Amino acid sequence: MTAPQAAFRPEIDALKTSLIAEVFYAGQHVKNLLPLWFGEGDLPTPDFVKQAAVAALAADKVFYVNDQGIPELRRTIAGYLTKLHARAIGEDRIQATASGMSAIMLVAQAVLGPGDDLVYVAPVWPNIVEAARIVGANPRAVSLTHGAAGWTLDLDRLFAACGEKTRAIFVASPGNPTGWTLDEGGWRALIEFCRARGIWLIADEVYQRLTFDSPRAPSPLDFAAPDDPVFSTNSFSKSWSMTGWRLGWIVGPKRTIATTRKLNQYNTSGAATFVQWAGIAAIEKGEPYIVEQRERLRRARDLVVQGLQRFPRVHLTPPPGAFYAFFRLDGLTDSAAFAKKLVVETGVGLAPGAAFGPEGEGWMRLCFASSEARLSDALTRMAPALS
Amino acid sequence: MTAPQAAFRPEIDALKTSLIAEVFYAGQHVKNLLPLWFGEGDLPTPDFVKQAAVAALAADKVFYVNDQGIPELRRTIAGYLTKLHARAIGEDRIQATASGMSAIMLVAQAVLGPGDDLVYVAPVWPNIVEAARIVGANPRAVSLTHGAAGWTLDLDRLFAACGEKTRAIFVASPGNPTGWTLDEGGWRALIEFCRARGIWLIADEVYQRLTFDSPRAPSPLDFAAPDDPVFSTNSFSKSWSMTGWRLGWIVGPKRTIATTRKLNQYNTSGAATFVQWAGIAAIEKGEPYIVEQRERLRRARDLVVQGLQRFPRVHLTPPPGAFYAFFRLDGLTDSAAFAKKLVVETGVGLAPGAAFGPEGEGWMRLCFASSEARLSDALTRMAPALS
Repeated sequence: MTAPQAAFRPEIDALKTSLIAEVFYAGQHVKNLLPLWFGEGDLPTPDFVKQAAVAALAADKVFYVNDQGIPELRRTIAGYLTKLHARAIGEDRIQATASGMSAIMLVAQAVLGPGDDLVYVAPVWPNIVEAARIVGANPRAVSLTHGAAGWTLDLDRLFAACGEKTRAIFVASPGNPTGWTLDEGGWRALIEFCRARGIWLIADEVYQRLTFDSPRAPSPLDFAAPDDPVFSTNSFSKSWSMTGWRLGWIVGPKRTIATTRKLNQYNTSGAATFVQWAGIAAIEKGEPYIVEQRERLRRARDLVVQGLQRFPRVHLTPPPGAFYAFFRLDGLTDSAAFAKKLVVETGVGLAPGAAFGPEGEGWMRLCFASSEARLSDALTRMAPALS
Repeated sequence: MTAPQAAFRPEIDALKTSLIAEVFYAGQHVKNLLPLWFGEGDLPTPDFVKQAAVAALAADKVFYVNDQGIPELRRTIAGYLTKLHARAIGEDRIQATASGMSAIMLVAQAVLGPGDDLVYVAPVWPNIVEAARIVGANPRAVSLTHGAAGWTLDLDRLFAACGEKTRAIFVASPGNPTGWTLDEGGWRALIEFCRARGIWLIADEVYQRLTFDSPRAPSPLDFAAPDDPVFSTNSFSKSWSMTGWRLGWIVGPKRTIATTRKLNQYNTSGAATFVQWAGIAAIEKGEPYIVEQRERLRRARDLVVQGLQRFPRVHLTPPPGAFYAFFRLDGLTDSAAFAKKLVVETGVGLAPGAAFGPEGEGWMRLCFASSEARLSDALTRMAPALS
């Protein structure tokens, strides 16, 4: 008799590898690579943040700390959000986490179990869909529509997709890969719906400050009552160029914090202590940096959108937020194959639209958080493939 | 009609707050506190590790990296383990994680689902039990026994506790809070059993190097074939005094790594990049530090064990590993109440045995990773309460 082989849970075996990673593997040995595939800018973390980490290390901020996050960081985030939203948001509503991803996972574990539905707006960063699958829930996509006015969400379709088993609605705004941004009326209607139905609204706001037509994107925190069933998840990665630092946070109703801190303890036991101190410096000294970065991104967006729009086969609208040009290419039916061919032939690394769900097939994502020189070079190199 | 209130999953509502945290809250404003309650030493991270982090920050190691961990760190861990176990352990079997806790959670997600059983050796660090509950599994304790020879495990009882629904056995060795250490024969029998039954063996080895009667504890990695169903989880926290750094790893069969890297991506997206570089320095330069620390801990253990054994009501045996004196106090039936009273009246913060499961009630845990002066002071202060 052969012994049975120890197995993984079937749900875990079924998890997908990121299609972006597949393209990355195809292109990793390409010479003169222009990598515009990941959701990350080309600028390193600003010095004032690095210096704060160095100072915290020198001061031996290297021990275990409070599993809700150090009080000084929670207070700083609370003060930042209170100013940003012009509404009091207390530190007793803040949970620091070991990344924006961890913030989403902790919330997923809290509210989603086997057989539960998560309704989300697609196309979307795939990690949220996989996080829902890990906890045994069923992710249900509601697609954005693309037209002359850009990406739009039909809220009635979203509401109609919510059934008896729906425990939460997930909305990333500004969205990745589309840049789609939900307006104030949309947030109000969503909060109202979730409140009436007793379901959770999970808002991923990591690109909240990276907007081009306004200083920031509308947020559910502008409208929700403190005890409304709303979680806002966020990260230091994008606004402060801290992708490799692994620091995020959750804002939730006060009653949820006793639970998220336990989940934080039992999942990761939290972000590194000196990284939390660096987060304080990012917020306290980072406003001029965010303003500069937004201006740089706006120029980059305009360069890339105008550059792409010159190709008759390419269709896109200028994204109001985030840092991606998400474009449709006439005749494209296998975005992953196209991305692999593109990187091998031209050295330009793009993310295939299918990486963001079947709703993204036929599209490609280019991260424009890069220098104008590199972006111009990418446009030139891609010309034959896009013509 | 009142709207339904958005709720958490019942399993999540049922998660316990650490009893150690409760005692901490009771004692946090005590003057002249001697905190010996957490699983953390009093020494800050050694300078050569901090310097490596500072150098990595200066070199802009602040971007996203491989979700299996940077190759340089995996190679360093693989080399370290190959030398430690005198058996080849390849970097293709190493998964870096955002903490030892995260290592355990990723493995729990991979192998345990709703209705599955996890059999574990108790008393134990409570986080593993709560991690199993978060993924919907049922943790089933098998108790160690304490006698003149110290703590012992009846392997037959452990095997008898494994039924149809058992997907994994969890063993922390050296154990927290007991210091119990499984011997070579025990590991061989466990591996054999798990192989034959097709269930997973999860070994938490964070105290592997902190032993007093031998240079390190026996490990399943000494005996398991590369494709045996064995996970070894580990952390930089204890051996290298890096509790606040949040860096751990998993060793698994090669076939499991494609999955753990996805789980790492979808849970935390990994440890901070410059922290991974600091981990390399810890391993490469840390051997003399571990030797010194072990000698310091051995002296501290002897001081505390001999000091406690002077009280007729106190019962304990010298732990062979980890850094805790876990002692029984005659007549003690509510260890949490005792711990709260003790910290308020004497300033000495201990962890109540009940924090480690019902098997620990009647016992107290003292972390002796501290200076002899502080430990002597603690013994003096506690004398009236232990007499």
